[in-house]
Amino acid sequence: MIAVLKPGATKEQIDNLTAWLEGRGLSVHLSVGEFHTIIGLIGDTSQVDTELLEGLDMVESVKRISEPFKSANRKFHPDDTVVEVAGLKIGGKNFHMIAGPCSVESEEQITAIAESVRISGATILRGGAFKPRTSPYDFQGLRAEGIEFLLEAKKRTGMPIVTEIMNVNHIPIFEEVDIIQVGARNMQNFELLKELGTTQKPILLKRGLANNMQELLMSAEYIMASGNHNVILCERGIRTFETYTRNTLDLSAVPMLKELSHLPVVVDPSHACGIARLVEPMAMAAAAAGAHGLMIEVHNDPVNALCDGAQSVTPEQFDEIAGKVRKIRKVMEQ
Amino acid sequence: MIAVLKPGATKEQIDNLTAWLEGRGLSVHLSVGEFHTIIGLIGDTSQVDTELLEGLDMVESVKRISEPFKSANRKFHPDDTVVEVAGLKIGGKNFHMIAGPCSVESEEQITAIAESVRISGATILRGGAFKPRTSPYDFQGLRAEGIEFLLEAKKRTGMPIVTEIMNVNHIPIFEEVDIIQVGARNMQNFELLKELGTTQKPILLKRGLANNMQELLMSAEYIMASGNHNVILCERGIRTFETYTRNTLDLSAVPMLKELSHLPVVVDPSHACGIARLVEPMAMAAAAAGAHGLMIEVHNDPVNALCDGAQSVTPEQFDEIAGKVRKIRKVMEQ
Amino acid sequence: MIAVLKPGATKEQIDNLTAWLEGRGLSVHLSVGEFHTIIGLIGDTSQVDTELLEGLDMVESVKRISEPFKSANRKFHPDDTVVEVAGLKIGGKNFHMIAGPCSVESEEQITAIAESVRISGATILRGGAFKPRTSPYDFQGLRAEGIEFLLEAKKRTGMPIVTEIMNVNHIPIFEEVDIIQVGARNMQNFELLKELGTTQKPILLKRGLANNMQELLMSAEYIMASGNHNVILCERGIRTFETYTRNTLDLSAVPMLKELSHLPVVVDPSHACGIARLVEPMAMAAAAAGAHGLMIEVHNDPVNALCDGAQSVTPEQFDEIAGKVRKIRKVMEQ
Amino acid sequence: MIAVLKPGATKEQIDNLTAWLEGRGLSVHLSVGEFHTIIGLIGDTSQVDTELLEGLDMVESVKRISEPFKSANRKFHPDDTVVEVAGLKIGGKNFHMIAGPCSVESEEQITAIAESVRISGATILRGGAFKPRTSPYDFQGLRAEGIEFLLEAKKRTGMPIVTEIMNVNHIPIFEEVDIIQVGARNMQNFELLKELGTTQKPILLKRGLANNMQELLMSAEYIMASGNHNVILCERGIRTFETYTRNTLDLSAVPMLKELSHLPVVVDPSHACGIARLVEPMAMAAAAAGAHGLMIEVHNDPVNALCDGAQSVTPEQFDEIAGKVRKIRKVMEQ
Repeated sequence: MIAVLKPGATKEQIDNLTAWLEGRGLSVHLSVGEFHTIIGLIGDTSQVDTELLEGLDMVESVKRISEPFKSANRKFHPDDTVVEVAGLKIGGKNFHMIAGPCSVESEEQITAIAESVRISGATILRGGAFKPRTSPYDFQGLRAEGIEFLLEAKKRTGMPIVTEIMNVNHIPIFEEVDIIQVGARNMQNFELLKELGTTQKPILLKRGLANNMQELLMSAEYIMASGNHNVILCERGIRTFETYTRNTLDLSAVPMLKELSHLPVVVDPSHACGIARLVEPMAMAAAAAGAHGLMIEVHNDPVNALCDGAQSVTPEQFDEIAGKVRKIRKVMEQ
Repeated sequence: MIAVLKPGATKEQIDNLTAWLEGRGLSVHLSVGEFHTIIGLIGDTSQVDTELLEGLDMVESVKRISEPFKSANRKFHPDDTVVEVAGLKIGGKNFHMIAGPCSVESEEQITAIAESVRISGATILRGGAFKPRTSPYDFQGLRAEGIEFLLEAKKRTGMPIVTEIMNVNHIPIFEEVDIIQVGARNMQNFELLKELGTTQKPILLKRGLANNMQELLMSAEYIMASGNHNVILCERGIRTFETYTRNTLDLSAVPMLKELSHLPVVVDPSHACGIARLVEPMAMAAAAAGAHGLMIEVHNDPVNALCDGAQSVTPEQFDEIAGKVRKIRKVMEQ
Repeated sequence: MIAVLKPGATKEQIDNLTAWLEGRGLSVHLSVGEFHTIIGLIGDTSQVDTELLEGLDMVESVKRISEPFKSANRKFHPDDTVVEVAGLKIGGKNFHMIAGPCSVESEEQITAIAESVRISGATILRGGAFKPRTSPYDFQGLRAEGIEFLLEAKKRTGMPIVTEIMNVNHIPIFEEVDIIQVGARNMQNFELLKELGTTQKPILLKRGLANNMQELLMSAEYIMASGNHNVILCERGIRTFETYTRNTLDLSAVPMLKELSHLPVVVDPSHACGIARLVEPMAMAAAAAGAHGLMIEVHNDPVNALCDGAQSVTPEQFDEIAGKVRKIRKVMEQ
Repeated sequence: MIAVLKPGATKEQIDNLTAWLEGRGLSVHLSVGEFHTIIGLIGDTSQVDTELLEGLDMVESVKRISEPFKSANRKFHPDDTVVEVAGLKIGGKNFHMIAGPCSVESEEQITAIAESVRISGATILRGGAFKPRTSPYDFQGLRAEGIEFLLEAKKRTGMPIVTEIMNVNHIPIFEEVDIIQVGARNMQNFELLKELGTTQKPILLKRGLANNMQELLMSAEYIMASGNHNVILCERGIRTFETYTRNTLDLSAVPMLKELSHLPVVVDPSHACGIARLVEPMAMAAAAAGAHGLMIEVHNDPVNALCDGAQSVTPEQFDEIAGKVRKIRKVMEQ
């Protein structure tokens, strides 16, 4: 870590700051220039609060050299992490299609979709039971009952399931869930992350709507620092000024996160765009960008069927997308 | 609510959609134009899921006419809400200065600051006990012990206290806290909001870093829909591309939120800018924009004292700021 | 276009507004609801100033139903536009690799790179002569001399060239340039767009750093409304809060722009990410998303060679990228 | 300037880089740490291209210590710049109200408004002649004729005028204009800035919609580096995710720009919010934040009058705003 001091910093101020930093177990290396004094800090700087330092009147700016994340950092763990889920391997050279409806609506619905997407090549079933909604008046999901229906679909199809958690008190309800999803709005719900870190459940951690990759990795670090290293990162679109798409899918996050971290990276093109027609090209692009997997919303419910398609793709469309994605994957594996 | 249908929508599709909407208790008003058919929906449209409608292939776009928030809406509650806190009135024509340290560090520290800011005119004491930090390795606050120290300072100075909650399970620890703060990162922690809505505690709800005013009001609506109408809104800066300031304080939110809602609006200039030198001009500007109060970080701890100033202002600086803000307030009251 | 009036609008106000709108040649269709009156406007609403209407005190909000762009709109021109450049066809089912250095540095440099990228499969040569730089102290390009070097490279290799214009007065210097590029910072330099619209030169129009797709299409409309329909759209990354990449490449813009407009869409992964290592995965992803072409920076200059690689890819890396992109294209053509 | 090298950088690479940097006249100071080597550069680093350095494979990151702007920098010019305009002084301890219509519509209109706002206390007249519009079909202003009307209003009222330029070729038309405005969309039209730098006209430079303060100051630097030091900075709102206001007025830019630079800073609350009702509170807040002046849209045209108010304020409202702003200014001057 480097702190650049302002031109006017006095010797006494510098001595005081140096003493305070050394008292925190860091080696301090001073470099006095014509205009600025630069302080280099060596040691475990992940414990130093950047904002505190930056706030000091004598400090012009602070720069981390080492990334503030350690457990999630590729530098200290060069090999890909492979998360094992019910016999499946996520990460490394493996590729998985996660598919299912936005919301679990009934046992029939979730089972029918599960059977359909499994035949098309999906290996993991998704479905929302607890739903984070901007409005308290919008449908909040079937909650615990939704998880029961997912478990029933799992029993029938053999597919492991992933579903979102929103409350630290619900962890017991998720005991038989294979992968617990932390949604974009809870990416910095640090109390939830810490608690999930005390389990050994695979966690699918979605990037927040206005969060950068370092913040995503710091949230992964919260889970890992508490002991759970089974973290899967998920890019699902970020908020931009664009209005034709709901969010903007950041596919450059795929190679960048894979460079920064050893954790698996999957992409959710359905939520990112909010438009069924864009799911196919974005799924193919995500595969071409090197994602370890895709998470795609598939529906078969009457409202949507009634109106010939919706934000989710139909089972038939999913089958076609899955086929095209496999072709892209073949190019990638050459 | 208005839904504009795409040019190709067939009569059968339109009939199906109309039937489905009427089945939800809404009156449907069709307006068939040269190129587009427009569907007007009358009734309680706050129950209609905009995203679901927008996702339908036959729908070009959907527009809400009524705001999706009701309890927080000035239209249905023309008079200002005044939240009562330990004999103080927040909102309406009242103005309050909330002051105190970023983090509670010790009983001596919090009590000393409390006594100092009270003399300068602050009426409510702030101090962080549970701290949301991006890094798991940063100081997480004194937690429950911090609240004890705040309560001790309250006993000594008579000032009501406000401090942040991060976990739905901590509500019992906050029993004697006068105002519970929900921080920017938890603004859409809907499970926490719902639970706080079952209490009657005044809630100071901070705007999320990348959330717009409607989302802030929808989060207030979560608390109010559960029965707790004692909500105070807080503008604390939003994320922009600016780098000289930590966040960008959106002061236009003050008159705009006051127009949209009857809830009190306070401003936190300390977190927004992250620079002590900007607290004075931004505090004065917030008062001139019509805020119901200010929330200002004041420190007296050795680390900062050591280095002559920091992100928080000193008690002496706070005294000067408070004096200048009072002069602005006098202009406002003329 | 729909205008929703505020609850309090009086009959007299509504009559005045209606008369004013009809005076502009529009048919006005009133729909009086319980709470709101809705005005539907039929006719050439592209002439109606949305902001003016929205600013009226009696108006709650305004919504365009038709897109404000006409010449660029797929609705009125269902077939793909194919821009012809020196015998090449851009758009439709065609795919082109545009490659070359960020800046033209010398005749030798540009010719050497041109010959190299042509062998690897590039069909169009890029190179900056006039460089838009944030700082007046940064290298501003070789300017007119740079264009001469590009023309020399064109003569030797037979490749058509594309280079950026920054000043309406420079159009004569670009007479022999095959495609004139309008950079992100000039996307809303409307005077330049209008003037380029009076030529018949193919224009490669880059999306602005913080502009949405509608604004990009409106800028294309400026060129087209002046008579020049040879416009190629270019996605080159938008400004977001991410810091690991310079900008965020918005690949969902590719299928979305192709749906909204009939114009060709190419992608520049080099500028978007600012990191050579990301060019390959993003080039492959752009091809998989359906782009009509790629624009890739390739260098061979000593500074970069000295240090083993830089933001641009080397000719050898470009050769590998081009090969992989061709494989993705084969999947797309199946 | 500091460059942090990646862990793997070889001695040969470092030597090559050092030689290259020294060849550019810089002193290089190496600091070899346990994990990273840090290169400190001393000398005129404003000539070093940060992006080029950052792009090198061996470089992890680059940090400027000195700001890249020099002429606009307060560090090298501690005293406030005071721009003289037709006998008026802008900057320092002076405060000015600039007022007038969005667009000049006729000689009668501009003269009537000018006389009215002058009585209310405005000292400079604004009015748009050349209008930057997103749509080619929107009203583009009266252009040269608009400037003639402004000059007529100046003759009658004695008020100096400010109006926007969009094309480098129009500079002769602006010969009698007192202050030339560069709009937000042209803030990085570097060719225009350079040309304006060769005149001695006062330039009112508006911040771009998605530009940060450093970019604004670099654009000021373009004008100043060409010889024209009469630059007035203008904050006019930036693009954010907020939708209730058109843009978000960044009032923290006022004290921050005044700290970074010696140039005057004025605020335009009308464009920022797009809502007449917000002009008063934001004008007062801007004055309280320390702005050197305000730029406010005032209309009296029939369309708006017809409908009882619009985005601009009426002359009567302006009179009230001006009175309140004077009271805030009195507090500031104490």
